[in-house]
Amino acid sequence: MIHVVGHKNPDTDTICSALAVAELLKQRKLDAKAYRQGELNPETKFVLEKFSIDTPKIIEDAENKDVFLVDHSDKTQSVDNLDKANLIGIVDHHKLGDITTSMPLEFWAMPVGCSCTVIKAMYDFYKVNISKNIAGIMLCAILSDTVLFKSPTTTDLDKKTAEELAKIANVDDMTKLAMDMFNKKSDIEGKSMTELIFRDYKDFLMNEKKIGVGQLEVIDISVFDKIKDDLFEELQKIKDEGRNSVLLLLTDIMKEGSQLLCVSDNPQIIEKAFNVKLENNKAWLNGVMSRKKQVIPNLEKAFL
Amino acid sequence: MIHVVGHKNPDTDTICSALAVAELLKQRKLDAKAYRQGELNPETKFVLEKFSIDTPKIIEDAENKDVFLVDHSDKTQSVDNLDKANLIGIVDHHKLGDITTSMPLEFWAMPVGCSCTVIKAMYDFYKVNISKNIAGIMLCAILSDTVLFKSPTTTDLDKKTAEELAKIANVDDMTKLAMDMFNKKSDIEGKSMTELIFRDYKDFLMNEKKIGVGQLEVIDISVFDKIKDDLFEELQKIKDEGRNSVLLLLTDIMKEGSQLLCVSDNPQIIEKAFNVKLENNKAWLNGVMSRKKQVIPNLEKAFL
Repeated sequence: MIHVVGHKNPDTDTICSALAVAELLKQRKLDAKAYRQGELNPETKFVLEKFSIDTPKIIEDAENKDVFLVDHSDKTQSVDNLDKANLIGIVDHHKLGDITTSMPLEFWAMPVGCSCTVIKAMYDFYKVNISKNIAGIMLCAILSDTVLFKSPTTTDLDKKTAEELAKIANVDDMTKLAMDMFNKKSDIEGKSMTELIFRDYKDFLMNEKKIGVGQLEVIDISVFDKIKDDLFEELQKIKDEGRNSVLLLLTDIMKEGSQLLCVSDNPQIIEKAFNVKLENNKAWLNGVMSRKKQVIPNLEKAFL
Repeated sequence: MIHVVGHKNPDTDTICSALAVAELLKQRKLDAKAYRQGELNPETKFVLEKFSIDTPKIIEDAENKDVFLVDHSDKTQSVDNLDKANLIGIVDHHKLGDITTSMPLEFWAMPVGCSCTVIKAMYDFYKVNISKNIAGIMLCAILSDTVLFKSPTTTDLDKKTAEELAKIANVDDMTKLAMDMFNKKSDIEGKSMTELIFRDYKDFLMNEKKIGVGQLEVIDISVFDKIKDDLFEELQKIKDEGRNSVLLLLTDIMKEGSQLLCVSDNPQIIEKAFNVKLENNKAWLNGVMSRKKQVIPNLEKAFL
């Protein structure tokens, strides 16, 4: 059986992509099942409930399994013992990672806003119809990853694909669906600092330094005002585990920018990366909404 | 401008893939040009002449260039200073190599017999018509890489794609076209041993040992009878440059198998890999036509 799985700290795109690819493989008469590497965030829970799709089971080890990866192509974000698995495919929209294979495989990647946009192209290539509910979660993944087409990663293909999926899923009002999702994301009541920071968090190696970057996208970042000290305390703890820097982006969907919180051994490098002055370890990054496109490349250049 | 280029020691698939992708990018209103990393073999020369396509120019360095790779995804086979280039796409049908990027890119790979089969899917995705001559060289690439559909790497998609391309290129008799190509390949008169061995030769790292594997596909391998001692002499020279083993596959297209010539520090590992007994450093490998599918994976397992 083919185990379809996305990256660690799963977001809506990674979960919905695993489900959509598993469904495509099944329609192609292959035995396949979606898996996840971690807990669902509140947005993803809402999306699966809305379209009546069951939550995938956890996978912890890839050894001796047939595996299809979605939404990533590097080892640090992937499932353990991937080198002992039979990797038969990858679909992604990030930079090309360090995973290698000893056999030819299927690889679909495009520089677009969402893995589900690429997966729609796969359905078209294999001439497989998308069911109403799978189209619904694929649409949600695009709305989530492109922040309702506001992120600079958004392409015309994302918009066109979302419109096609909305038709299949019978969604008349994409904006309302997106706002319902973002409201779930913005509800931080009763959540622990660890849970918030690790909801969408990735570690990177830059010039042999370990840099962690988390991101929280909400409708109005004033919800964080009361807990900012607690967030900084938690960021410091994560940094003390052997990292050079830990950054948290509090992204304001409506204002279309992010407040950067940062603890670092090299704050001047962080300032250089974004051409800003940190005040009390904080800075407003106007227009910055995409970690992938507007944060990581700048950090990589600055840490060279 | 986008520089489209295939692997070192170019074969017909790598050259025709570079030309076909450059043409696709141009049809998409992007500035693009095909390049090559080495001399054309006689088969490829015949193919380009037959369909009136100019030979691509040599590229020696990728620094500061926009690059689109075809028919490979690993650094050893790629152009120098690739890490200083802007890699915008890859199309391939081999195992996934060790090339990485810092930005998202387009990646098209399928476990099929020929890169041009994947490129046909790209044309369809972008809804671009293929010109008669480009369809002709893409068809030749498929006939060459799949050895007229006899290689075990051949898939139904390769056959279907070849038929579609033959229609566009106005080719009525694929078998005749393939035999004309194979006759060019089989003409070894007046060629030096170096030229023959390096016509289609790749180095691999297996368990930190450097292993070279060349392949010559001809209609009747008796053409090599007179020069076998000279071939062995040259293989020994290549091995003496720091390799653990150098293998040469003399593939008989009609008999559908290969004679293995081999010089090695570990002949018993080679014997284990193919489950044969070497006699005077030679063995007949029945049914073995694909280096990628029937030779490299076996060697990798045996050298573990």
